[in-house]
Amino acid sequence: MSRDSARLAAADDALDPAEADRMLAALGQRARAAAPVLALASPATKTEALRAAAARIRADAPTILQANAVDMVAAQAKGLSGAMLDRLMLDAGRLEGVATGLEAVADLPDPVGRVLADWTRPNGLKIQRISVPLGVVGVVYESRPNVTADAGGLALKAGNCVILRGGSESAHSSAAIVDALRIGIAAAGLPADAIQTAPTQDRAFVGAMLRGRGAIDVMVPRGGKSLVARVLEEAKMPVIGHLEGLCHVYVDGAADLAKARAVVVNAKMRRTGVCGAAETLLVDRAIADRALQPLIRDLLAAGCAVRGDQASLAADARVTSAAPADWDTEYLDAIISVRVVEGLDGALAHIARHGSGHTDAIMTEDRNIAERFVNEVDSAIVVVNASTQYADGAEFGFGAEIGISTDKFHARGPVGAAQLTSFKYVLTGDGQTRP
Amino acid sequence: MSRDSARLAAADDALDPAEADRMLAALGQRARAAAPVLALASPATKTEALRAAAARIRADAPTILQANAVDMVAAQAKGLSGAMLDRLMLDAGRLEGVATGLEAVADLPDPVGRVLADWTRPNGLKIQRISVPLGVVGVVYESRPNVTADAGGLALKAGNCVILRGGSESAHSSAAIVDALRIGIAAAGLPADAIQTAPTQDRAFVGAMLRGRGAIDVMVPRGGKSLVARVLEEAKMPVIGHLEGLCHVYVDGAADLAKARAVVVNAKMRRTGVCGAAETLLVDRAIADRALQPLIRDLLAAGCAVRGDQASLAADARVTSAAPADWDTEYLDAIISVRVVEGLDGALAHIARHGSGHTDAIMTEDRNIAERFVNEVDSAIVVVNASTQYADGAEFGFGAEIGISTDKFHARGPVGAAQLTSFKYVLTGDGQTRP
Repeated sequence: MSRDSARLAAADDALDPAEADRMLAALGQRARAAAPVLALASPATKTEALRAAAARIRADAPTILQANAVDMVAAQAKGLSGAMLDRLMLDAGRLEGVATGLEAVADLPDPVGRVLADWTRPNGLKIQRISVPLGVVGVVYESRPNVTADAGGLALKAGNCVILRGGSESAHSSAAIVDALRIGIAAAGLPADAIQTAPTQDRAFVGAMLRGRGAIDVMVPRGGKSLVARVLEEAKMPVIGHLEGLCHVYVDGAADLAKARAVVVNAKMRRTGVCGAAETLLVDRAIADRALQPLIRDLLAAGCAVRGDQASLAADARVTSAAPADWDTEYLDAIISVRVVEGLDGALAHIARHGSGHTDAIMTEDRNIAERFVNEVDSAIVVVNASTQYADGAEFGFGAEIGISTDKFHARGPVGAAQLTSFKYVLTGDGQTRP
Repeated sequence: MSRDSARLAAADDALDPAEADRMLAALGQRARAAAPVLALASPATKTEALRAAAARIRADAPTILQANAVDMVAAQAKGLSGAMLDRLMLDAGRLEGVATGLEAVADLPDPVGRVLADWTRPNGLKIQRISVPLGVVGVVYESRPNVTADAGGLALKAGNCVILRGGSESAHSSAAIVDALRIGIAAAGLPADAIQTAPTQDRAFVGAMLRGRGAIDVMVPRGGKSLVARVLEEAKMPVIGHLEGLCHVYVDGAADLAKARAVVVNAKMRRTGVCGAAETLLVDRAIADRALQPLIRDLLAAGCAVRGDQASLAADARVTSAAPADWDTEYLDAIISVRVVEGLDGALAHIARHGSGHTDAIMTEDRNIAERFVNEVDSAIVVVNASTQYADGAEFGFGAEIGISTDKFHARGPVGAAQLTSFKYVLTGDGQTRP
């Protein structure tokens, strides 16, 4: 849990809750007024708006970077950690990444108005299921300025309005980015209120958002566990999110060891702070004799601390003993827990007990074993012979993502523009009456 | 709102809430133990189980009808209304309908394990989105014994477990039906705990279900507005349902009047107590001169009371004056409110303000007008030139439905077996690591 997350999740608010409710209601009214226009906007207009927003981000780069410098100075004075400062920091390269990200979303196929299903009943009634926007999306996130553009861009692509509330440390950066987005959107003839941001940094506004079922149709929390937990607990509207990514890699007895070694190091160490990073390595007893030592050696060589069971301790002197809590810990750090299990059934039992339903991988050349793993692991993303770090909307081809969902409801896995849509049924007849 | 609904929605409970929580937890554990078996059950096994359940309903008919007679005697003694007694009553014909309903669900295509999408990334990683069960479905409903079989059958078809809590007046009938279902399921080799029912009629158990996020993955309320409102307010898990069906028929200036007359009477009067029944008729001023009188006359002739605006009052002396509240009233009765509007825009504005997002219909021969209506009415089901009473899972070809959703989240419109599923992503690689 980051400190920013703890701050967002804190309960004491300075602003009067009723006043926060009124502030949200005002934003909600503007969003509701803009929503029908967004919902009916043509694919070309939305693409144009996103491209104009990207262009405006580039044109406003000096202003945005200056705003970010103000945030950075304040954040340093507050003593924020290096990792947090890094997430907050923008430079010309990162800002260009924000602009190209918006252009990538602009170029995605339009997710609205698609005929998802189409059939004709014996009475001649034609039934179509057609994708439509969700409405107004609320996004509560930590101090990552890029989320402002990602969330705004994806929501707009799906014909939704968004109400954004980023972490207070990124207030100036986010406000400058939102200004640029709104100018770009308006240039394409769409209402600028498609993207709105909290008018106050007071935490009471988050509470108002979570209570604001009339103003916000779906809430997306993006941040640490305590922030997501608060949203899940308090939100009166549906929530798309995940509490944690406690991801496993199981190296089966029928694994190709060379592939497994490369995948395990990648799954753990490519980036340790992402939700798709592996936290636990499970090794089949059938292959432990020849696999455990090299797997652990690779991880240690990559700079990863290894906490293991008896077999792992015996395999390498640098392994430390895993405590029971380790199997339930999302490290988000260069630490892994390692355990020998009794084949596929042992791995399935361990994952069922300790997993978070996010992403779990198996390394095996046995198709039957892979099929059982795929069928029996109840996670949003199940991976065969590849890294868990592919748990990412861009890697799925979604262009970008607003987060990853471990819910089974509505959206599961990476949440891109298509996941921010609903559908309606259209029945077309010729005067049919029901007998 | 029915009286039964008021009873279910009442707050004072005799059973200690902690004890109710323990009772639910016990059911939840049994459901969780059965869920993986259900999720992995083959299509043939589920079909066999549903057919065996139907056979058992037929074989146990004397027992079930006797149980129903006990409920009926008690309900009559309590002074339940005729409509409620009718909903509670089973006879040989209705019970045969329950059995054939289960067989219809048995014969539906299996909604689990379908490849919903399938693509390969440039790095060779194959991505599939595959449908999976939701898990454990909770159903809270009123005293309609047939819902017991419908909900149990649809949930099982989708590989889910259900925990049922029907109205107390149908306790004996529902228990006898659940016994038959469980015996049938077990005969096919599936766990009988796929279908469980509340062990107590105490209302506190409903509260325990709504709090029981660990035991129940999704809640389906089926009943009157106060029951659904309580579930929406209190449920800690996602809810599939709808508060009301305030459905409109708009007769456009370009309507075929003969079709419109037949559809309007059918939409209102075929059955007045269903959520897809029309409650408000909107007539385009451009056609009012020749359409209003015959439309109102047809409705009156069919036994419908008409409450109207000035133009409607002028059209027929039997029309009474509509109060402002009429436009917001779901009558569920032989009453309709009628209003002349200024063309499509007037109709859209009225529906946006007074509609419930359930089902709304337009009668028009103008394709452009129809297209605008379809695009701009934000309802689960939008109908062109046919009756609103087609808002029904069976009429959609879903076999049966557990209800109709006006949510935009997950399931919208009729909720059949396919709507009780989620999906997982399966990534299949050959050792891919992420750069």
